[in-house]
Amino acid sequence: MEAISMNVARTIQTHLVLPPDTNHHGSIFGGKVLAYIDEIAGIASMKHAHGNTVTASIDSVDFISPAYAGDVLELEAVVASTGRTSMEIYVRVQATNLITGTSCLTTESFVTMVAIDEDGHPREVAPVYPETEADTLLFRTAPERRAHRSAKRALQSHK
Amino acid sequence: MEAISMNVARTIQTHLVLPPDTNHHGSIFGGKVLAYIDEIAGIASMKHAHGNTVTASIDSVDFISPAYAGDVLELEAVVASTGRTSMEIYVRVQATNLITGTSCLTTESFVTMVAIDEDGHPREVAPVYPETEADTLLFRTAPERRAHRSAKRALQSHK
Amino acid sequence: MEAISMNVARTIQTHLVLPPDTNHHGSIFGGKVLAYIDEIAGIASMKHAHGNTVTASIDSVDFISPAYAGDVLELEAVVASTGRTSMEIYVRVQATNLITGTSCLTTESFVTMVAIDEDGHPREVAPVYPETEADTLLFRTAPERRAHRSAKRALQSHK
Amino acid sequence: MEAISMNVARTIQTHLVLPPDTNHHGSIFGGKVLAYIDEIAGIASMKHAHGNTVTASIDSVDFISPAYAGDVLELEAVVASTGRTSMEIYVRVQATNLITGTSCLTTESFVTMVAIDEDGHPREVAPVYPETEADTLLFRTAPERRAHRSAKRALQSHK
Amino acid sequence: MEAISMNVARTIQTHLVLPPDTNHHGSIFGGKVLAYIDEIAGIASMKHAHGNTVTASIDSVDFISPAYAGDVLELEAVVASTGRTSMEIYVRVQATNLITGTSCLTTESFVTMVAIDEDGHPREVAPVYPETEADTLLFRTAPERRAHRSAKRALQSHK
Amino acid sequence: MEAISMNVARTIQTHLVLPPDTNHHGSIFGGKVLAYIDEIAGIASMKHAHGNTVTASIDSVDFISPAYAGDVLELEAVVASTGRTSMEIYVRVQATNLITGTSCLTTESFVTMVAIDEDGHPREVAPVYPETEADTLLFRTAPERRAHRSAKRALQSHK
Repeated sequence: MEAISMNVARTIQTHLVLPPDTNHHGSIFGGKVLAYIDEIAGIASMKHAHGNTVTASIDSVDFISPAYAGDVLELEAVVASTGRTSMEIYVRVQATNLITGTSCLTTESFVTMVAIDEDGHPREVAPVYPETEADTLLFRTAPERRAHRSAKRALQSHK
Repeated sequence: MEAISMNVARTIQTHLVLPPDTNHHGSIFGGKVLAYIDEIAGIASMKHAHGNTVTASIDSVDFISPAYAGDVLELEAVVASTGRTSMEIYVRVQATNLITGTSCLTTESFVTMVAIDEDGHPREVAPVYPETEADTLLFRTAPERRAHRSAKRALQSHK
Repeated sequence: MEAISMNVARTIQTHLVLPPDTNHHGSIFGGKVLAYIDEIAGIASMKHAHGNTVTASIDSVDFISPAYAGDVLELEAVVASTGRTSMEIYVRVQATNLITGTSCLTTESFVTMVAIDEDGHPREVAPVYPETEADTLLFRTAPERRAHRSAKRALQSHK
Repeated sequence: MEAISMNVARTIQTHLVLPPDTNHHGSIFGGKVLAYIDEIAGIASMKHAHGNTVTASIDSVDFISPAYAGDVLELEAVVASTGRTSMEIYVRVQATNLITGTSCLTTESFVTMVAIDEDGHPREVAPVYPETEADTLLFRTAPERRAHRSAKRALQSHK
Repeated sequence: MEAISMNVARTIQTHLVLPPDTNHHGSIFGGKVLAYIDEIAGIASMKHAHGNTVTASIDSVDFISPAYAGDVLELEAVVASTGRTSMEIYVRVQATNLITGTSCLTTESFVTMVAIDEDGHPREVAPVYPETEADTLLFRTAPERRAHRSAKRALQSHK
Repeated sequence: MEAISMNVARTIQTHLVLPPDTNHHGSIFGGKVLAYIDEIAGIASMKHAHGNTVTASIDSVDFISPAYAGDVLELEAVVASTGRTSMEIYVRVQATNLITGTSCLTTESFVTMVAIDEDGHPREVAPVYPETEADTLLFRTAPERRAHRSAKRALQSHK
């Protein structure tokens, strides 16, 4: 299959952090951010695969700095690399305080999605190619992340 | 206050239509779309006003064509015009069938938001200016919509 | 089809405003009120049409005064007028502070619903006639609101 | 305190049974009906007590006949009797199939609520008196239900 | 059918009380606890019946002491006794303050579930036998509770 | 601080997979399982730390086999190892088909939580020691997983 630009499936999501989404320090619950990451990773993978996909693994979700009630959260998801039937999705979450105008990287995550056909069986997906500098970096570091995931799996198999 | 480009507060939201969001014909509930419109209009107005805002009125929400389970919904909100303390937000909702690749305009809406200070009182907002062709059309037709809203209010007052 | 009294489909809903439904000024989110309006308009239209209906447009939602946590919200929906397959639903939302006993008109809204058959196609609905003074006023002012909606549609078509 | 008519706190709620609220036989989950009963009992008790109340016990919830997706549920809550600081709330849930027009008694429930002051301590409530025939029956049978609840408590104490 | 140990269907649930689940005194809403009780009673009955079940009645829910935001709620459900097609489920809810380490009995409840076959008709369930001291007490007091429920039903029938 | 047995904070959660939680193949959404994992990891870490905790990272979530509507999900969380202020939580999710009685490992996950004091600053936690065979294996393999997480962090830093 012909490679598709990483721009094609790029997906953007904007949310407002509401009081019920936060703990008593006013910072957003990890579980709320996870739910947003899962939704946007699903959409980006479906846009790339032109059909249904399922989550194979959440490879990492790093909570880097907190977001507070009243902040705007901006999520961006991109297909960082592909396997034969799988897509590695990179999700970046940024929080902006609208009054001060300052933005922080809140969360970074890598998720592996698999394209499935009507019967729920895995099906092939097109490869991707980067067009921006940030996408190129993501794309080039994919083999290292893949090696790392294989090492982790080996580690779990003798558990 | 100095005018701000309509690009600054433009907000994008992407959602997947899930089966529990749909009726037995498989098309999305109006209420679900309304909830998305209300959230994105709030975010765009807060980005423009650099602070809290409240909804003054939903001026119209037109359901133009249905969206179905599995479709991707893309919402875009922009500050179409401003009063002294109010912002008229235009929200456009488009549905895309990922398998066929076809997109439809699902819903169009105009919402009036008011900027408020810490005590909940209205406070002034900057005017906007358009930079794209579509934004220019929205901005130029604002006085007609304003006249129309005044007429409607007159109509309700003798109810 | 024979006309039906506006009393037949009248629908009443009572809700308590809970803290998670309110912003940091303690007043209810517009989106929460919208969700209630959409649900009650759907029910009133289904009671009138004896079957399924879909939302065609939210013609207006005016937030007149805020409701606070602890208030009781009372919604009343009535079929204000009808077209061949459509129903104009008027929804009135009143908030009562149980401690002081004072009530305020919080929100007024007009919604257009369309009756659909099993295949999702529009189907005819019976006309309505008013029996109370308030209903008579609503019913008599329907042509003005219709004219106003047509004018708005014309306005959007050259957008 | 002077007795208040049972009509004063009577509360009505109308809901549509949606597909996600139902099991694979299409009938509504007991838990969904429970949530509606708890909300309406709370509102009726707050209307009677002119202030906050807490749930002391659910004395019974009998699921008499199922309600199906598409049905309209009508709940009615009334203060059936009172103690010094407590209110016995009767909630009746009726389901109507809008296409056939048939209605069934779905659920009946008795809930005991206690009025609380600002510090969360119980406070006195006014007694009630009935005005309709159905309310009179409810009011007259209250002592039997009270005796029955005392017997149940005795039964649990030696558990 | 051969009797099954009460240990087999015993089900445990642990929840954290979050601020949006609490009123302005910080104590959990009765409705939230009810939703947990309904879910765990359903699971325990399905584990015993090896298939689907429906709620026939909530026989009692006693709110004994409040649980506060930050507390851990532990629910335990057990099949306390059985009829031909019905199961009486006992649910016990305990709250623990993690900082002080103190635990309180928050709520006790009895729920009657009925096993159903693929067509929604009642089907037979196996009896239970107790193995622990607490289960023996529950099992032995079942006839008294059954007599009490019959008395209550008689009481409602002449309402 | 003195070491605490891994049994102390062990937390169990049981859920029923409901139709609205599943996709059109009837298998549960990854996002729903994630929400459960996040909740139970939070509870186990709070039980170990006797106070509040925040999620630092989701280190892995592997979806091993699907769970279907009607299955019972059993989650078990345990503190697998500790740092000075952090806890590595292992969450295991098993699905059981109640009709066939077969169980499958659905998901395995490692989450890092940090204990915080009243001001939101990290505070020390006690170490853990294993008592069961499975816990011993988890505890012994912790250094390998830690090394692996450090390697991953190094990998991201030159991104």
